[in-house]
Amino acid sequence: MFDAASWNGIAIDSTCGGHGTCKKCRVRVTSGEVPPSRLDFRAFTPDEIAEGWRLACMIKPQVDLSVDVPPLVTRPKAATVGVGRQVILRPAVQKRYLELEEPSLSDQRTDIDRIIQAIDDIEVDAGLEVLRVIPRALREGFFKVTAVIVDRELIDVQPGDTTDKRYGIAFDLGTTTVVATLLDLNTGTPVSVASMLNKQQPFGADVISRISATMMDPDALQRLRTLAQDTLSELTLEVCTEGGVDPRDVYEVALAGNATMTQLVLGIDPEPLGVAPFIMASHEYPDVRASELGLAIHPLAPAVIMPSLGAYVGGDIISGALASGMDRDKRLRLFVDVGTNCEIVLGDGERLLATAAPAGPAFEAASIKCGMRAAAGAIEIVKITNGSLTLGTIEDAPAVGICGSGLVDACAALVSAGLLESSGRFVSDQVAAEVAPGLADRLVLRDKERVFVLEWGDTVGDPTDAIFLSQRDVRELQFAKAAIATGWALLLEEFGVAEGDVQQVLLAGSFGSYLSPASAVKIGLVPKLPVMRIVSAGNVAGEGAKMALLSVQERHGAGALLDEIRYVELSDREDFNDKFIERLAF
Amino acid sequence: MFDAASWNGIAIDSTCGGHGTCKKCRVRVTSGEVPPSRLDFRAFTPDEIAEGWRLACMIKPQVDLSVDVPPLVTRPKAATVGVGRQVILRPAVQKRYLELEEPSLSDQRTDIDRIIQAIDDIEVDAGLEVLRVIPRALREGFFKVTAVIVDRELIDVQPGDTTDKRYGIAFDLGTTTVVATLLDLNTGTPVSVASMLNKQQPFGADVISRISATMMDPDALQRLRTLAQDTLSELTLEVCTEGGVDPRDVYEVALAGNATMTQLVLGIDPEPLGVAPFIMASHEYPDVRASELGLAIHPLAPAVIMPSLGAYVGGDIISGALASGMDRDKRLRLFVDVGTNCEIVLGDGERLLATAAPAGPAFEAASIKCGMRAAAGAIEIVKITNGSLTLGTIEDAPAVGICGSGLVDACAALVSAGLLESSGRFVSDQVAAEVAPGLADRLVLRDKERVFVLEWGDTVGDPTDAIFLSQRDVRELQFAKAAIATGWALLLEEFGVAEGDVQQVLLAGSFGSYLSPASAVKIGLVPKLPVMRIVSAGNVAGEGAKMALLSVQERHGAGALLDEIRYVELSDREDFNDKFIERLAF
Repeated sequence: MFDAASWNGIAIDSTCGGHGTCKKCRVRVTSGEVPPSRLDFRAFTPDEIAEGWRLACMIKPQVDLSVDVPPLVTRPKAATVGVGRQVILRPAVQKRYLELEEPSLSDQRTDIDRIIQAIDDIEVDAGLEVLRVIPRALREGFFKVTAVIVDRELIDVQPGDTTDKRYGIAFDLGTTTVVATLLDLNTGTPVSVASMLNKQQPFGADVISRISATMMDPDALQRLRTLAQDTLSELTLEVCTEGGVDPRDVYEVALAGNATMTQLVLGIDPEPLGVAPFIMASHEYPDVRASELGLAIHPLAPAVIMPSLGAYVGGDIISGALASGMDRDKRLRLFVDVGTNCEIVLGDGERLLATAAPAGPAFEAASIKCGMRAAAGAIEIVKITNGSLTLGTIEDAPAVGICGSGLVDACAALVSAGLLESSGRFVSDQVAAEVAPGLADRLVLRDKERVFVLEWGDTVGDPTDAIFLSQRDVRELQFAKAAIATGWALLLEEFGVAEGDVQQVLLAGSFGSYLSPASAVKIGLVPKLPVMRIVSAGNVAGEGAKMALLSVQERHGAGALLDEIRYVELSDREDFNDKFIERLAF
Repeated sequence: MFDAASWNGIAIDSTCGGHGTCKKCRVRVTSGEVPPSRLDFRAFTPDEIAEGWRLACMIKPQVDLSVDVPPLVTRPKAATVGVGRQVILRPAVQKRYLELEEPSLSDQRTDIDRIIQAIDDIEVDAGLEVLRVIPRALREGFFKVTAVIVDRELIDVQPGDTTDKRYGIAFDLGTTTVVATLLDLNTGTPVSVASMLNKQQPFGADVISRISATMMDPDALQRLRTLAQDTLSELTLEVCTEGGVDPRDVYEVALAGNATMTQLVLGIDPEPLGVAPFIMASHEYPDVRASELGLAIHPLAPAVIMPSLGAYVGGDIISGALASGMDRDKRLRLFVDVGTNCEIVLGDGERLLATAAPAGPAFEAASIKCGMRAAAGAIEIVKITNGSLTLGTIEDAPAVGICGSGLVDACAALVSAGLLESSGRFVSDQVAAEVAPGLADRLVLRDKERVFVLEWGDTVGDPTDAIFLSQRDVRELQFAKAAIATGWALLLEEFGVAEGDVQQVLLAGSFGSYLSPASAVKIGLVPKLPVMRIVSAGNVAGEGAKMALLSVQERHGAGALLDEIRYVELSDREDFNDKFIERLAF
């Protein structure tokens, strides 16, 4: 009910995080049947129940309902995150400053009862660890303390009033790059951001090589786990130092990663993810402490692990779909996270389909001769205008290689210029001289393979130390884009719509964000649509993790997405190969 | 509802442990109002609900109800524990052998879903640790596995069928002695028992000296915790070795201890327990793993910690009250656990009062000149018949000292023989010679103090190395019994009944069990009642812990006792001192 309301932009009062205890989310059902819950009997008189009053948080709408929502008592704060999403600030992390009565022989309530009874709108649970700090904290603070509650768990009791310090960290745990954002949960604003390469890199660039490592070496799982934890730890230290925040004031983290990264960092054997029939240990991950991720923040801080739909549609995609509103936008939208494994979600806010396409390493540049990561000096823009070539490099540094977006751009430009056949073969020298006389001399033979030189090395005319695109590189890209296009084409077919019906394509992930929409359309990586409909969504996985920290409702939305999205497995589709071959041409 | 039914000796079907998920505990309410719960809507049709059908486990009776209980589908096993209590075997620990379908591309359910969906009568939760073992266990067992569930938590998945191995350990963590009982949860029978002294002894004999230690030395809490854990660990090893049981097949433990022992073993600062106003950290203890108690059994085995009513009416007493049926026996009964701190519970099954009386160290023998623990050679029986003295020692060994029960016996015998005035003073030599000529020469001066020699040493007539009872020893016992008698006298007053109304006195604890009922009555330690009404209850704390392992219903009963028993604080009673002085006389 909360979710439904918030999706419709209606704010309902609540302070307990939807547990039916604060009794602030009173709504009146005016049409439609909603059996009263056990908690409704506590919150309302029988007359009120008969009039349709219910706690909104307990309603699981099964049929269409009309509901009166009383005006808000408290004015909610909101933050803008994700793809232009307004999120009402309701973090799971809450702090309450309490001035308690001191115990006496006539008031021998236990320490924990004294605290819990002072928090009247949340039914608080307390574990052993917090029980250990309570007796001293109460007496050090002369019974004036701040309770730190996450969701329903009391994780700390601190002497005095510490309500001004309340932080969380959102992690995007990528196979290649890991990003951390420190959030001030009092205001919803980012305090600092840091990123670095995943320290698991020595075990291979993609998830399959890392899974293989665990299959061959029984110690590899533990080592990969430690490396992921080290990465997260260093980033934590960095964002806290930069933000001037004591790590012990970070009370919750959220982590979005693909299924392999997630299982590895949690120490769960990823082997079944790597071999058919591709089985995950779990969709949703159990309650985990941040300390399980190796993080030295508040010792009882929980870690929210974004749930995974399938072995190759992981928590990063659920997180991204959440951040880009795939579950509520009424337009037919296609979400494409381009990478070694390409995840695709298609939906219209009512129905959602997802799949994963094995694009191979073309975009990660490992298999491209002059490929490199998107770093300074990488050619990311390739344009051929009026027969002349223009390159753009990252940070405008001297060119040292080609990154994934440069590869797509280059192929698109070469096809447009007539230097690359739609079959993916470089044209003959003769044709080249005809269609692009100013560029024909860049089409040369190098190590018995035809290449197109983007930037000459020391000697113009000698491709030895040049930056070039080889025939084989083009083939790699062709295979990748064919796999991706087959993926979304099959989803469109399953959905019963045509390419042209798609109203928006969201290009997600660090690679997708840099991709030129025009080039992506040109080579057939995305449906043939007006360029305006192709949008870079940015690092939506990280945005979803932020949303999970800022709002428990949005966090539940991630779980709801799991139920709503239907996974379409491609690997056993008989028509996959036919479609794949159709899609190979540019 | 379950509790009410089981207290009335009615067995209701259930396999989920009262969580509303197995839907076996169907009952029909024939009179009285019970609003349907959310789970009733899942379990019954609207017609059935209208006819009064409800899940018994979800009913919290507020008014008198008449209920039809269908005959049992499964015949429950039962075990006899506690004070003649029949307990229906429903351990929280359950094992389920599962033959699962192997995954395929058309059945990509996650590993955990595959297991959970095969357990259709319990809503199982799984934590990270078990998620780590699942992928391998499933594949090693070729998808034929045994799920180990405790309460609602899946704690293990084991290849093959291991249902025949299911054990638990009940601990009675006494300040002095610690007892462990290994139980076979498949049959409810004890496999082996072991006991040893609490390794915390070097920190003092009683709880106050151990609390003081933590106040003076910041490291003492951790050391005391470790010593308690070491004690429990050694006993665990001992019962497992003796029982031929692999410790990893022990899936749950239950622990009964006083509030100080409990807080110490959990690492919770006990200081507020030791100083007025005597505040506990918590009545009920959070979910804790046995590993938190330092036990190397199944790594995820939970530990059930018996809840405490007050700083001096701890989990041992709640456990004992449970085992002796204080909450259901309709007779007016007085439960007395005799010790340094004496806990007293008075109740008639409807109303329950409890208090703690500071008896001092008389019974622990530390402050008695010839005092010793109840070990071989301790005088435990003292009789004066026809003017001649008879002694009984433990194990019939040569006498080496007096234990607590011997002390009570001796004083009672000396009062009866006229050698001790009711004021507690030894009679003059002259009177002694008159009333007990055969014993008068045993009343001698030793170190300027009058003593009564129970057993001469090397030389008859020389008390130097004799075993004796001193005037000061008698005073110690007087103080102790006056404190205890004041405790129950105030409870009787509070309850509005007279001494003679008490229908049964239960003497609990290792000391109480050895006490001669006649002597206890004689010296006024218990109400003046026919000796038949004074019953040794034995080690009821340990029995309660066993019951908690054997039956989740009984375990919940311990929590219910907390709500039912009203604690009466003696230390701020204005009439305590007057009553105490009245009770000093024998």
